[in-house]
Amino acid sequence: MQEGFTVAILGATGAVGTRMVQQLAQSTIPVKTVKLLASARSAGKLLSFKGRALRVAATTAESFAGIDLVLASAGSTVSQRFLPIAVEQGAVCVDNTSAFRMDPTVPLVVPEVNKEILRQHHGIIANPNCSTIQMMVALNPIRRAIGLKQIIVSTYQAASGAGQSGLDEFYQEARDYLDEQPMTAEIFPIKGDHQHYPLAFNLLPQIDILEDNLYSHEEWKMIHETKKIMLGDMNASDIKVTATCVRVPVPFSHGESIWIDTGKPDATVDQVRQALANAPGVVLQDDPRHQLYPQPLNATGTRETYVGRIRPDLENPGAFNLWVVADNLLKGAAWNTVQVAECLVTDGLVHAPA
Amino acid sequence: MQEGFTVAILGATGAVGTRMVQQLAQSTIPVKTVKLLASARSAGKLLSFKGRALRVAATTAESFAGIDLVLASAGSTVSQRFLPIAVEQGAVCVDNTSAFRMDPTVPLVVPEVNKEILRQHHGIIANPNCSTIQMMVALNPIRRAIGLKQIIVSTYQAASGAGQSGLDEFYQEARDYLDEQPMTAEIFPIKGDHQHYPLAFNLLPQIDILEDNLYSHEEWKMIHETKKIMLGDMNASDIKVTATCVRVPVPFSHGESIWIDTGKPDATVDQVRQALANAPGVVLQDDPRHQLYPQPLNATGTRETYVGRIRPDLENPGAFNLWVVADNLLKGAAWNTVQVAECLVTDGLVHAPA
Repeated sequence: MQEGFTVAILGATGAVGTRMVQQLAQSTIPVKTVKLLASARSAGKLLSFKGRALRVAATTAESFAGIDLVLASAGSTVSQRFLPIAVEQGAVCVDNTSAFRMDPTVPLVVPEVNKEILRQHHGIIANPNCSTIQMMVALNPIRRAIGLKQIIVSTYQAASGAGQSGLDEFYQEARDYLDEQPMTAEIFPIKGDHQHYPLAFNLLPQIDILEDNLYSHEEWKMIHETKKIMLGDMNASDIKVTATCVRVPVPFSHGESIWIDTGKPDATVDQVRQALANAPGVVLQDDPRHQLYPQPLNATGTRETYVGRIRPDLENPGAFNLWVVADNLLKGAAWNTVQVAECLVTDGLVHAPA
Repeated sequence: MQEGFTVAILGATGAVGTRMVQQLAQSTIPVKTVKLLASARSAGKLLSFKGRALRVAATTAESFAGIDLVLASAGSTVSQRFLPIAVEQGAVCVDNTSAFRMDPTVPLVVPEVNKEILRQHHGIIANPNCSTIQMMVALNPIRRAIGLKQIIVSTYQAASGAGQSGLDEFYQEARDYLDEQPMTAEIFPIKGDHQHYPLAFNLLPQIDILEDNLYSHEEWKMIHETKKIMLGDMNASDIKVTATCVRVPVPFSHGESIWIDTGKPDATVDQVRQALANAPGVVLQDDPRHQLYPQPLNATGTRETYVGRIRPDLENPGAFNLWVVADNLLKGAAWNTVQVAECLVTDGLVHAPA
């Protein structure tokens, strides 16, 4: 019998779930068995793991017996319902939904930034929001080498953040527009909200619901997850953060235009570049003379976070502009989740396999 | 014989030029004759003006005899060559290129902001860059009612900013991508630069050339044109400006995510909204409960600048985030040019027609 962990993937048939299966297959985690779980509607589908066809099962309270590790991406309500059951039965869960992110007892982890807090886990580890993750990978090396006092970020977020159904709608809209047919919108800006607008050939400055404080929930996440990841407290004030989140007609990989104040008036572009040059998970693509800068088409399908267009704010010493791109479904979701699981395994933070 | 002005449109067959013809037809300017000028390659084409078909002529030094008003959008070198000749022969020129924008003797005009400086003209008036114009229309009312100390802007700029050939390439790329064919890029990010990348389903953080100071020329324009328009001096420091310009896969209308510091810590969102509610050229689209915010698909074909998603920066009193959209070919180019010409006519700043 093969040595290794029994891993359940919850939400295995979605845009993120299918990539969790891929990323797990390519990871360093010794896997004995993979259990693919989804809604009753998706049960019976076949997915490939390391060349074997695995059948997807419907998720029930009984699904988690004997599971060592759960990777979850089936929505917040599903995580809220099932992850406590999985933990009860001895599993460690890495959750890609927002269900537990703001629970002060749940570590919110980007391995390149704060993997040491995994030691504090109580069974559930939260994966941050996609747009937060890539910003953390890009800014943490600058924070450590120079300093970080303020962040102002504008996002350019891909359609696949709304899942496979969002992607399908977006492509259909694009085809209809090019054929001079009317576009039909039923998903964007977000499933279940009152109004729907075409995303193809358009820009939608709403991601997730708009809250009473005028910020979208996506913007709220970027602000408070940043504080929790970098400072350990979702309301910490040592780094000021504000965000504007915009959905753009791109299928994969988010772009972010980030302005930062390092708080160090003498900081130089060379210092910022140097901080990023050998930073974990970062690829520096910053060569204006050769028109080298991050692009979604190049980032898609990779695990890295790409940083370029690094420029000093010419009138605010110590402040800089950056352009950051990463695959929202990989580093922003599936890969970060599997990467956290890898760290848990490496550091002996999952119960030893039976 | 009909009373009115003889108007020449230089670059009449381009994406902006064809819209100048339309906007002139819909303007309050009494037009006696329209002369359509373009390159020798485009000479002979027919364009419609108020129901009449007009033939396009090749531009020569002799084209400007008897012309009262020139509206120019045929590129900087064409403007540099021909506008001084037109002025010499008595015409007043409104130039949509960047040829004369930074000449301290040339007014750089957004009518809603600084039309009073038209009185200082010496024959040439410059139209600002598209991305600058809509930002000025949105921010000047705030500056006047509250204050303005700092601007940090990230743009989401449409393909049509690169002209009709850019638009054509973009649509072809989109078709090829959807048909799973390779995309061929020969224009974006900019015609004539060394590298070309697909724009469809991608993001390109380069508009115009990248300069030695690491900023793109588009970013440079937003910084220095803002200072010239608002403060009368391209290097004034009373308002700090920094910009990141990104081309997005949208055909028409630019989006801008703008962070401003008003310098007034007690300023409120209601004050910002009130400043914009009746501002000239502005349509406030800011109702989060009804998911109302500016979108390119809605702005396209209109002359207005749309402002929404107005939010206080929760950690910087007096600072706000805004989302601004306008049709880059109309308010960003053809309409602003014709609007300047309307002001010149209304204020008696064109020589009386013969």
